[in-house]
Amino acid sequence: MSIEAIASAVPQRRETAAEIARQTGVDEAFIADKVGIQYRHVLGPDETGIDLAEAACRRLFDRTQLKPEDIGTLVFVTQTPDHPIPHNSALLAARLGLPHRCAAFDVGLGCSGYVYALSIAEGFLAINEIEHGLLVTCDPYSKIIAAEDKATNAVFGDGATATWLRRTGNRTKLGICDFGTDGANGKAIMVPAGGAKSPFVSLPHEATLVYDRNELRLHMLGRDVFNFVMNRIPESIHTCIAANKLSLESIDWFALHQGSRYMLFAMADRVGIAREKLPVNIDRYGNTVSSSIPMLLEELMQTADLRGRKIVISGFGVGLSWATNVLSFKH
Amino acid sequence: MSIEAIASAVPQRRETAAEIARQTGVDEAFIADKVGIQYRHVLGPDETGIDLAEAACRRLFDRTQLKPEDIGTLVFVTQTPDHPIPHNSALLAARLGLPHRCAAFDVGLGCSGYVYALSIAEGFLAINEIEHGLLVTCDPYSKIIAAEDKATNAVFGDGATATWLRRTGNRTKLGICDFGTDGANGKAIMVPAGGAKSPFVSLPHEATLVYDRNELRLHMLGRDVFNFVMNRIPESIHTCIAANKLSLESIDWFALHQGSRYMLFAMADRVGIAREKLPVNIDRYGNTVSSSIPMLLEELMQTADLRGRKIVISGFGVGLSWATNVLSFKH
Repeated sequence: MSIEAIASAVPQRRETAAEIARQTGVDEAFIADKVGIQYRHVLGPDETGIDLAEAACRRLFDRTQLKPEDIGTLVFVTQTPDHPIPHNSALLAARLGLPHRCAAFDVGLGCSGYVYALSIAEGFLAINEIEHGLLVTCDPYSKIIAAEDKATNAVFGDGATATWLRRTGNRTKLGICDFGTDGANGKAIMVPAGGAKSPFVSLPHEATLVYDRNELRLHMLGRDVFNFVMNRIPESIHTCIAANKLSLESIDWFALHQGSRYMLFAMADRVGIAREKLPVNIDRYGNTVSSSIPMLLEELMQTADLRGRKIVISGFGVGLSWATNVLSFKH
Repeated sequence: MSIEAIASAVPQRRETAAEIARQTGVDEAFIADKVGIQYRHVLGPDETGIDLAEAACRRLFDRTQLKPEDIGTLVFVTQTPDHPIPHNSALLAARLGLPHRCAAFDVGLGCSGYVYALSIAEGFLAINEIEHGLLVTCDPYSKIIAAEDKATNAVFGDGATATWLRRTGNRTKLGICDFGTDGANGKAIMVPAGGAKSPFVSLPHEATLVYDRNELRLHMLGRDVFNFVMNRIPESIHTCIAANKLSLESIDWFALHQGSRYMLFAMADRVGIAREKLPVNIDRYGNTVSSSIPMLLEELMQTADLRGRKIVISGFGVGLSWATNVLSFKH
């Protein structure tokens, strides 16, 4: 299976570090230097994740030969779908006019989702002999973060991506993937609503107050996430490179999830990755969850000659979960 | 890939048709005869979907040689996870003590989810050369249905299943799958909360009332769902059987999603399926969403000699979405 092309979309509304500082009360220098955000894009009150995903798909159709009627599989990576039920992929398939015979499903993963979903899609296309797949990512965290929330609002931005996958294509090749899951620390990135609590079980019929705002909000234990990344991901990158019989030196770029600039650089230093091999987009988009890696890849594909090049891709976060693979471009 | 074994679990709390009639105001005879529920099981106020899924997995471990440390992939099919973030599969992996190197992800599908996920898992195990997979289903709709809700509370029951999948196993073989998606009618089964609306965007900071109960409740347009099933699924079953170069007569059982007894029988009649080839469990469990088909298969595997037998499996509902496959047992 080959990645034929990638397109992304961000909302029109753009916020600077100074604006984020005003909303949250966090120091502007901290946002700009430590988190690493110069600006980011945020959905407006009338826009949804599916709207943004649709924009990314339409851009992909505009740029390439891919047509909606060719698509046999739509995979949508999200943990913040427009609605709990039905899945985003079904609603997006209708918006794009995909054929009724298209297989469409959502994958519930966060920052590791794109790397996972490449493997999920590769297997699905192979087993079912489906030629063209569309892999979409969008997790608009602005919908689950309060403006004044210091811990999380200064980190995330909204974005969506669409990747054209082709079963018999040979532009790129995926290597052996290193997967991992540490659910015991899953509460480090969490929306607490739900669990045993149901508005229909625990409250009297006349109640209209169903959740406290705080329960619907994203909670993140920054230090736990940082420790997880520093402990797990360098090992995953080394394991993946060794499994693919490659060396650190033979890798041209490392397209790593953009959690924060500080964490990205600290982790890359631990691995031993030179700065010039480390593309960055958190400065312009913030942490876009599952969209960070495909946005990095899109930019590399547009600006560099990738023939014969190798890119390590590594996603890590919500779950806690991680996945690392090597993407090789043909000569 | 082979299905080696299936185990299910239902909550202790059991409700009869008479009890459901009292809650909803729906006629008891309608519940017992048309929906087809004699009784069903419902999670207690302190129990969650992951609790029930864990019980199904532990039953699977008790019954078989499968050990937690052997599992390389955990796929959890749900649209009602314990929390919006993180995914159920990560939290369940930790509960079961699965290895940190286990790949774990959720698949966001409803009643078509088990048939889809068999294909997703087969491809994932194959591509990644992972030997043992654990496929889990649980959608506890009791958490998103109000007791007094006539349209939906008289239909659904809670259940969970765990399926042991083995890449090189040969007990069973999956055929060519027929997939489909009709997202234009996705609102026929929906939880409206979300969309453009965010409690953090649209409400003032001091607000604690974030959603109306009604928005968090499952809405179902029964007639639209019925028409969808009658129009799409007979065609899908015929298409799948033809694609696998089989005849209707050569199929031993049809393990079909148990939406309601009336719909099940009407649709099976349209296909031309004899009643003795149509296992039923809605009478004892209600409509258990993605768990209905694996619960049917578990019962067949426990009570019948399946060597050389062929079972059509077809899931359909939320999305709207469907998938039909043929499961063949070796001689």
